[in-house]
Amino acid sequence: MPCEFRMTHRVRFADTDMAGIVHFANFFRYMEDTEHAFFRSLGCSVHMEVEGRKIGWPRVRTVCDFKAPLRFEEEVEVQLLVREKKARSLAYEFVCRKVGSEPPVEVARGAFTVVCVALDEAAGRMRAVPIPAIIADQIEVAPEPAGSEG
Amino acid sequence: MPCEFRMTHRVRFADTDMAGIVHFANFFRYMEDTEHAFFRSLGCSVHMEVEGRKIGWPRVRTVCDFKAPLRFEEEVEVQLLVREKKARSLAYEFVCRKVGSEPPVEVARGAFTVVCVALDEAAGRMRAVPIPAIIADQIEVAPEPAGSEG
Amino acid sequence: MPCEFRMTHRVRFADTDMAGIVHFANFFRYMEDTEHAFFRSLGCSVHMEVEGRKIGWPRVRTVCDFKAPLRFEEEVEVQLLVREKKARSLAYEFVCRKVGSEPPVEVARGAFTVVCVALDEAAGRMRAVPIPAIIADQIEVAPEPAGSEG
Amino acid sequence: MPCEFRMTHRVRFADTDMAGIVHFANFFRYMEDTEHAFFRSLGCSVHMEVEGRKIGWPRVRTVCDFKAPLRFEEEVEVQLLVREKKARSLAYEFVCRKVGSEPPVEVARGAFTVVCVALDEAAGRMRAVPIPAIIADQIEVAPEPAGSEG
Repeated sequence: MPCEFRMTHRVRFADTDMAGIVHFANFFRYMEDTEHAFFRSLGCSVHMEVEGRKIGWPRVRTVCDFKAPLRFEEEVEVQLLVREKKARSLAYEFVCRKVGSEPPVEVARGAFTVVCVALDEAAGRMRAVPIPAIIADQIEVAPEPAGSEG
Repeated sequence: MPCEFRMTHRVRFADTDMAGIVHFANFFRYMEDTEHAFFRSLGCSVHMEVEGRKIGWPRVRTVCDFKAPLRFEEEVEVQLLVREKKARSLAYEFVCRKVGSEPPVEVARGAFTVVCVALDEAAGRMRAVPIPAIIADQIEVAPEPAGSEG
Repeated sequence: MPCEFRMTHRVRFADTDMAGIVHFANFFRYMEDTEHAFFRSLGCSVHMEVEGRKIGWPRVRTVCDFKAPLRFEEEVEVQLLVREKKARSLAYEFVCRKVGSEPPVEVARGAFTVVCVALDEAAGRMRAVPIPAIIADQIEVAPEPAGSEG
Repeated sequence: MPCEFRMTHRVRFADTDMAGIVHFANFFRYMEDTEHAFFRSLGCSVHMEVEGRKIGWPRVRTVCDFKAPLRFEEEVEVQLLVREKKARSLAYEFVCRKVGSEPPVEVARGAFTVVCVALDEAAGRMRAVPIPAIIADQIEVAPEPAGSEG
């Protein structure tokens, strides 16, 4: 049962800033895009209808440690690890490594805590709900490696 | 009756790219933000309900000519000019001048054509509708200056 | 000799806005990313050193016509066509079609005029220079199709 | 001696996503923009030359807890608090409160750790350096409030 997922992103020109490197906030986008591709790999979407309700995944907490710069046209592999699975929330860790460097350089490491909500569009509100089985039953928590760097 | 509006923007770090200047796509954001402030100055919003319908303003055409670079922490005044008012659409011109340069340096000049739509959220569709009177009655086309640079 | 290039982009969550569709300014990013991948396909980069000079490609004019909305997780194929090749500038046309719709839906059509510059970083300036042969010799203008839609 | 700074931001249309609220990564931009305005309030810039060296402030760690949604055209006041001042780094806390709600609603709370570097552009590298006195001498750590929520 999937507990991790990997996706490679190539740094776009618009991702850089005047310091010549990827603007830090864009790392959160690489992580989010990886999360969404993970859901697609399960035949799901972060934005789907389940039993007539629109489901969404607002972020409760996001964090990133930046370790090395990343530049235009470089490629970064983002590894998503499921770190926690609760009734209404998930926690991910993201390890970002520059592609093609040997040994691989870890450029950033982040984490998201996300909560599953049902969107009540008429009321313009959302409330936490149990993660639908079609998603929850396909995901498990990643084993902690012995001698983990996390 | 208003036919123009001015708004000053300070260049944010995240607006720049590795060339050390504002990434061109962000000029479209400065223009759009100016358009939205123009609507607020009329007591309206680009995202409002009129007679029970949600109104929106998708872009049909946007264009920008780039004339000089703009850098971090510089200020740019965007002048919006109403160039056309039809039953269901508006056309704006935007003149972007660097603040504090004497004579003022025109850094970019753009144009938007936008159409007024009603959003049918249930169907996930939108269709062109006449501009609500509460907006249309407050706006007029700007006079062309003699010896216009446009 | 290459006169066109195609690249497919999947709409990211962060590309959308509260109208539920891709924010118009992001189409310019899809086009730019396609241009940069076109350069990579030639073994070059838009940000490269040629004979000791750093070359860049500022935009002089960008335009886009928006024809149909594009939504989260949809895929768009951007076709770049070289429309003009001058000593110091290039002009591209971009045709954006939604992937998987039959017949293909054209969602947007745009154009860039870009100029080749040498960056003088010490002076913080750039000036137009002839397109390096390593690039110019690999590109030709696309033939206009009979009965062109352009 | 300044230990805090406040800046109000109005949510731009392009800051929202298809969930109808501010995309979470944009909170990091509001925080960064507040940091940069704080530096300007001291007569400095995050991107300045000190004694012939270009100084920069890469992020080492950024974190944000999201507490309530923020929507288009709402205003958010970001309060920056200096939480740590070391020889070569600073740590900030950011408290984001929706303007005009009574009592004020805290929509997000974040933190940055940033390091002062000198940019060696020829080598394309940066290395940590002591914070220049012109900046360090103007900043002090904010007192922890009794009964602090931080």
